[in-house]
Amino acid sequence: MTTQSATPTLSALGQRARLPAVARLMKSALENPNLLSVAAGFTDNSTLPLAEFVAAAQSLAARAGEPEYLQYGTAQGRPELRRMLAARLQYWEPTLPTENMESRFMITNGSQQSLYIAVQSLCNPGDLVLVDRPSYFAFLDVVTGLGARCISLPYDDQGRLHEADLEQFLTTLKLSGDFARVKAVYLVSYFSNPAGRSLEEGDKAMLGRLLTKHDLVVPLLEDVAYRELFYDEPHPSRSALTLPEWAAFPQLYIATLTKPFSTGAKVGYAYCTDEKWLTQMLAIKGTHDFGTSNYGQALFEEVIRNGGFENHVPKVRRGYKAKMLALHEALVAGGLLELGWTWDVPKGGMYLWLCAPGNLNTGMDGEFCQACVDEGVLYVPGDLCFGDKPETNWIRASYGVLSPAQLRVAGERFARVAQRFAR
Amino acid sequence: MTTQSATPTLSALGQRARLPAVARLMKSALENPNLLSVAAGFTDNSTLPLAEFVAAAQSLAARAGEPEYLQYGTAQGRPELRRMLAARLQYWEPTLPTENMESRFMITNGSQQSLYIAVQSLCNPGDLVLVDRPSYFAFLDVVTGLGARCISLPYDDQGRLHEADLEQFLTTLKLSGDFARVKAVYLVSYFSNPAGRSLEEGDKAMLGRLLTKHDLVVPLLEDVAYRELFYDEPHPSRSALTLPEWAAFPQLYIATLTKPFSTGAKVGYAYCTDEKWLTQMLAIKGTHDFGTSNYGQALFEEVIRNGGFENHVPKVRRGYKAKMLALHEALVAGGLLELGWTWDVPKGGMYLWLCAPGNLNTGMDGEFCQACVDEGVLYVPGDLCFGDKPETNWIRASYGVLSPAQLRVAGERFARVAQRFAR
Repeated sequence: MTTQSATPTLSALGQRARLPAVARLMKSALENPNLLSVAAGFTDNSTLPLAEFVAAAQSLAARAGEPEYLQYGTAQGRPELRRMLAARLQYWEPTLPTENMESRFMITNGSQQSLYIAVQSLCNPGDLVLVDRPSYFAFLDVVTGLGARCISLPYDDQGRLHEADLEQFLTTLKLSGDFARVKAVYLVSYFSNPAGRSLEEGDKAMLGRLLTKHDLVVPLLEDVAYRELFYDEPHPSRSALTLPEWAAFPQLYIATLTKPFSTGAKVGYAYCTDEKWLTQMLAIKGTHDFGTSNYGQALFEEVIRNGGFENHVPKVRRGYKAKMLALHEALVAGGLLELGWTWDVPKGGMYLWLCAPGNLNTGMDGEFCQACVDEGVLYVPGDLCFGDKPETNWIRASYGVLSPAQLRVAGERFARVAQRFAR
Repeated sequence: MTTQSATPTLSALGQRARLPAVARLMKSALENPNLLSVAAGFTDNSTLPLAEFVAAAQSLAARAGEPEYLQYGTAQGRPELRRMLAARLQYWEPTLPTENMESRFMITNGSQQSLYIAVQSLCNPGDLVLVDRPSYFAFLDVVTGLGARCISLPYDDQGRLHEADLEQFLTTLKLSGDFARVKAVYLVSYFSNPAGRSLEEGDKAMLGRLLTKHDLVVPLLEDVAYRELFYDEPHPSRSALTLPEWAAFPQLYIATLTKPFSTGAKVGYAYCTDEKWLTQMLAIKGTHDFGTSNYGQALFEEVIRNGGFENHVPKVRRGYKAKMLALHEALVAGGLLELGWTWDVPKGGMYLWLCAPGNLNTGMDGEFCQACVDEGVLYVPGDLCFGDKPETNWIRASYGVLSPAQLRVAGERFARVAQRFAR
């Protein structure tokens, strides 16, 4: 073929689409084969439930009747799996209404697809979403990819909300003329990405109360991807689903089966309190893909039914706790506290959220970030995790994928760079 | 919870989203438990590759090393599977350039997701896509769901294109002022949904030539979902990928592994000739879901590697041919030809496309359609399969899911209604 092909004219969305900024970093980083990445939110390899998957495939095969799970399913997802998810949610939020509960679920390709469809269903280009500060960067990419924009709620550096700050924030928002463009609120409320924090129930309730007071009763997207990944005990906050201060808000509670089990299997789900909204999201889901892999869903039905899921999750929790401690201790041993670095010790999830001392720029294009890559450790620059007004002195370090031994080395390398920049 | 929840304000896209029209039909039809559905494009149950899936799961489990396929993958999809798909496409289109061929693939949740992402990447609301007449209704739903619009190419009733008609069509389009809004061409070029036809190579070449002549070199989406589902031999037309008349067009060749194997496993793929366009589509795919289930892809690697896929596809072909003949012969035996009904005998695929005699209205809201449901047979009203100016005397009858015995009964029921309406 010698003919030169024409350049396609892309839509506004097509032009806007960007690979995540961190993908650029990773690409350059691939040149260093000894690099240890605490950047990607990949999950633990040593606790992948291989035996459970094979047993599930065999058990499915041994079922009587036609293997309907190798056939198309529905956009909403398998009824039996939705009944199991309803029982699961009932366990976490016992005061939820139970009647026809399974009809309020949507099963998706990981929880990411729920985030995408939710924003598609709510936001026109130019609209606004209120988010945590910091917030989950892949969600920020969804919002900007769809032409909308994020505004950060006024959290303090400890992840707390204060009434006076919220009052001022909402008043300013109203005066800015942007108020009517706010179409949703997005919270990662348990062991969050990136901060590893959980929203205190009192703060969550206050937020609902003040949004109501300021006539901002817009849909809430509560992302609970890490709720079950606690280390010692669940975080005590109830979901907004059962907090009276949020009762007037249409809500989407977004969760996943794969984060605490196997991310390669990609089955997420969402529970929606509004029937009409759910219907519209299911119609969108139908045009995306007609529904999530029926076989993947059926495998999860099996591992939930036979107890494999419940038995496996505690192993994953123990694994992450050990890995968190490995990285945390390596950073402490490397003298970071003495240099003025600060961070919380998370009680669940997969992330350390490190605050650099003084005016040290840890951002994507800063010297510190490049020095870390040169030293053999890659992190997510914290500036990518802000919906607006990015701060350049934060770092997200994921201990999801590396082993404890690797995390100790990564921590040592990181500390060496931090020491060098402190001089 | 006694508080009444607020009604969410949906985006334009959220408001536009509609369950497929045929879903309404199915809902009402569910009240009749004896109903036989030739409506849904579901696939054959008797040839589902159960043993192949279990063997693949076991074989994956027996691999040395960590089960990386239970971990997150990439938005583009597994490199090994993409190399296999490159070899597969090379077999069908031997003159394609082979260098780095696997880098031009995108793996998706069934081919439907490729259609969705392609239209997202190309069309702003108000834009136009040229489509077959008739065309695949789920694609039409994607286009309208994204706020764009379809215009039918001037096929004759035998599925052929003629130069004079195309000249007139393109001239009219130019004069209408809509020309600049045409952003893509969509063809289902082998054993099409719904017409069961393949586009003759000469017609395909002519279409490329005339679009070029009229300065309409826009991206081509060639949907080949049924190309491998031939009965006796492949259709001889080359893909537009290797036709010189299409060499200047950016192209997306959209296919699936699941249609000829197991629709419940949901792994589709697309091959893109334009690097920049593919990059943008992969960025969109990344925000949708970070990539298709890694485990599902790995299972396909196994069944392709061990020959299970190749061995299975001929069984599926034989099954569909037998089922096509069962339905076809039941309609002939029921006297439909004498009543003036006409249809092609397909050489592949899963659909009969029936043309009713005279002015008989077989549309969604017509009496004939309701009479069929009452008699116990449900079809897809052909009017749903037109991108514009729907005709109301066509029917899509899928023989995908019913057994030959059920198809004979469905054909008899259908013929009884046709006889009644002929009086």
